Amino acid sequence: MAENQEIKESLQESLQQVITLLDKQHLIEDLVHKQEQDAPKQELLETLVHKQNLAVLQSKLDLLHPADVAYILEALPLEQRLDVWELVKAERDGEILLEVSDAVRQTLIADMDSDELLAAAEQLDTDELADLAPDLPKDVLQDLLESLDTQNRERLQSALAYPDDAVGALMDFDIVTIREDISLEVALRYLRRIGTLPDHTDKLFVVDRHDILRGVLPLKRLVVKDLDLGVSEVMTADPVVFNPEDLADDASKAFERYDLVTAPVVDANNKLVGRLTVDAVMDFIREEAESDMLSMAGLREEEDLFSSVWKSVQNRWAWLAVNLVTALIASRVIGMFEGSIEKVVALAALMPIVAGIGGNSGNQTTTMIVRGLALGQIASHNMQSLLKKELGVSLLNGLIWGGVLGFIAFMLYHNTTLSVLMTAAMTLNLLLAAVMGVMIPLVMTKFGRDPAVGSSVLITAVTDSGGFFIFLGLATVFLT
Amino acid sequence: MAENQEIKESLQESLQQVITLLDKQHLIEDLVHKQEQDAPKQELLETLVHKQNLAVLQSKLDLLHPADVAYILEALPLEQRLDVWELVKAERDGEILLEVSDAVRQTLIADMDSDELLAAAEQLDTDELADLAPDLPKDVLQDLLESLDTQNRERLQSALAYPDDAVGALMDFDIVTIREDISLEVALRYLRRIGTLPDHTDKLFVVDRHDILRGVLPLKRLVVKDLDLGVSEVMTADPVVFNPEDLADDASKAFERYDLVTAPVVDANNKLVGRLTVDAVMDFIREEAESDMLSMAGLREEEDLFSSVWKSVQNRWAWLAVNLVTALIASRVIGMFEGSIEKVVALAALMPIVAGIGGNSGNQTTTMIVRGLALGQIASHNMQSLLKKELGVSLLNGLIWGGVLGFIAFMLYHNTTLSVLMTAAMTLNLLLAAVMGVMIPLVMTKFGRDPAVGSSVLITAVTDSGGFFIFLGLATVFLT
Repeated sequence: MAENQEIKESLQESLQQVITLLDKQHLIEDLVHKQEQDAPKQELLETLVHKQNLAVLQSKLDLLHPADVAYILEALPLEQRLDVWELVKAERDGEILLEVSDAVRQTLIADMDSDELLAAAEQLDTDELADLAPDLPKDVLQDLLESLDTQNRERLQSALAYPDDAVGALMDFDIVTIREDISLEVALRYLRRIGTLPDHTDKLFVVDRHDILRGVLPLKRLVVKDLDLGVSEVMTADPVVFNPEDLADDASKAFERYDLVTAPVVDANNKLVGRLTVDAVMDFIREEAESDMLSMAGLREEEDLFSSVWKSVQNRWAWLAVNLVTALIASRVIGMFEGSIEKVVALAALMPIVAGIGGNSGNQTTTMIVRGLALGQIASHNMQSLLKKELGVSLLNGLIWGGVLGFIAFMLYHNTTLSVLMTAAMTLNLLLAAVMGVMIPLVMTKFGRDPAVGSSVLITAVTDSGGFFIFLGLATVFLT
Repeated sequence: MAENQEIKESLQESLQQVITLLDKQHLIEDLVHKQEQDAPKQELLETLVHKQNLAVLQSKLDLLHPADVAYILEALPLEQRLDVWELVKAERDGEILLEVSDAVRQTLIADMDSDELLAAAEQLDTDELADLAPDLPKDVLQDLLESLDTQNRERLQSALAYPDDAVGALMDFDIVTIREDISLEVALRYLRRIGTLPDHTDKLFVVDRHDILRGVLPLKRLVVKDLDLGVSEVMTADPVVFNPEDLADDASKAFERYDLVTAPVVDANNKLVGRLTVDAVMDFIREEAESDMLSMAGLREEEDLFSSVWKSVQNRWAWLAVNLVTALIASRVIGMFEGSIEKVVALAALMPIVAGIGGNSGNQTTTMIVRGLALGQIASHNMQSLLKKELGVSLLNGLIWGGVLGFIAFMLYHNTTLSVLMTAAMTLNLLLAAVMGVMIPLVMTKFGRDPAVGSSVLITAVTDSGGFFIFLGLATVFLT
């Protein structure tokens, strides 16, 4: 009984949190409101607060869109997340698992047994299964493959064979095809026989008897053109197409440039193998942007907001270790000049300024270059003018801010040589920051690495050690 | 003549660069290829290289999609950019100006006179004009407003009245409406009379005689359902709708969650005023992601890759100045302990390690929090468990890495007290980094500021000054 009491309390806490989330999230409120036109939403929320029982929470969850349930699960700490997960109807498990982030998905899957997982997976389309498969235990995946028919098993295996960043991993198989030698009237009659079209269908794919793509027929043309016209007269014969091997990043740029909603995916022989939709592309863009932001700080995306302390430490330790090494190098650079610091202790107080501002300026340069690389705007032909510009900016900043700092140093220590050294060291370190800020991302790209990952840590390492060396070196020569 | 020669040389350089860009960008090549099926693309490029004259470049540019011309303009240094811009057909100026980034647009507009600008603007729809208007000179904007009819002038003025981050600023007016009391057959006959539908039309908006929204009719339902059915029987009566005042960020999340292609925008009385399309939303997401990335490094988006040195200095000086102040404060913290450093000079070499690793760890925490805030996953109810988690991560990291550093310090300086101090200072500074890493973005949000802007500079400021103070303070008490 005591245990039951505990479960009840834990559930009440979950409920409270779900209500807070619902309250915060206007979109969800509106949705709930829309689906229960009779009960004003304030009243609905109050009912929830007062009754606070399992059945009510469950029925509310059942009304929500899978993406909204996913949002709630992501915003809950682990324990409450699993409580809510228990309440979600089994037949919706699959769609919800698709919507949550990778890290949260792992926590949910860890809580399910093989039968539940298999049941969830069996509700999904092949392309959706491909998204879920990497997170499934090996034996469940094996059972799943055996349960599929030949066509779907082949599709799933080929989708799993493409890397995450290829069009083949993003495409789906919800394609509706027609022949080019029929009239629009016949095409429309055919569609009425099918009775329903997949989500996002904005065009039909026109193929010959061997599934070779001949063109695409936008629905918005189908509904306005004369019914007697032939499909081949109305279709676009040279649509934008992708290959499964194309980079998803290039495809997403094409979707943005040419404002696409869906596009056919064809193999090397121009045979239609699938389609790419704007929602898959949009998810990809959002994930890329997030992972860029996280990786610049040395984080991977496998950590969710409520990952365990131990998991978070594992996620973050790699870059902290790199940082430890770079900090040790910087420390040894200072160690080389301990004699000078003992003589002029003001050097110890001033040296972090030179290093810090160099790091900030270098990060600005690196960020501009990483962005230019991501947009495909940087090539060998314009590297020289880029470097010239960044050196110009650094020279100007070095003289201005170095001058200001030299002045402040003079006010503090009344030593003219020290203050001139300060200005010179600042300018030199900013020039170093400019050169390395341009070079580091370019070299990383050259060696096939993502320039966003850790370039910030590397540039800071250079400007720290470089700044200490330049400033203390100059001081040792001219001051001591 | 000498001047002509110079122009010619400059143009040849531009041409070379455009060719390099075309060559690099497979998508564009494919496009050119598609539109000139006869000439293999390699041959096409060679023709360009050999002839190298104005007319060829011009005709090639005319074949490109406006978005591709925009891409080329963005990747060219200013001088060559303006050369190419001169060659673009005047009647395409408007569409191309819409596609380029804000910074590049300003350079192009600065090169055009009032008549050219007015001519370019007159090719655009009202919603497109609204995007361009803020960059136009005041007198051109005035002339433009006078040239519009009443409906379009009102639309433009109302679109300009909404802030950049509101749905009202993103929506367009390409809406096709039908009545609910007609049959699908009548609806289709009406569409055939119109003859063409706006881009991205995936649904028709169903309104009553007062333009009050009654529902939406997806085209993919229109083409599969029985023609005798009434619009009201087939339409979705409770679609996702937006108000012009809604935040574009919320709308973009709704587009992602509910996989929308277009959605109606209605006023407070549910009267249809416009529509939001997925391409506008996708552009918004991309711009937000870029501006987040730039602003974390203290950059604004008004700088393009080839902005002048002076413009870049202006763009970057604000955060460098903030950094200067924070570096000075850290320097004064060190200054307080100059006496201790004179006695134990090893402190000068070790102190940047404590500060640096604190900064790195604090940035990891801040990045997680900024992301959680952006996804709407952080609220008062889960702040406590977040802080607990981050403190746990820091404690563990501090003991592990602080221990390693303490050991290294002992190897270097053979001083047990110093190495214990090192471990203690590291742990304390990482705990400080965790608290401030959580608090800084939350406080910035509380005061209505974007937590991405400069939170990195602020957390580094705290961990620098804090790290120096903790380490040198402990050393002064226990070591000197």
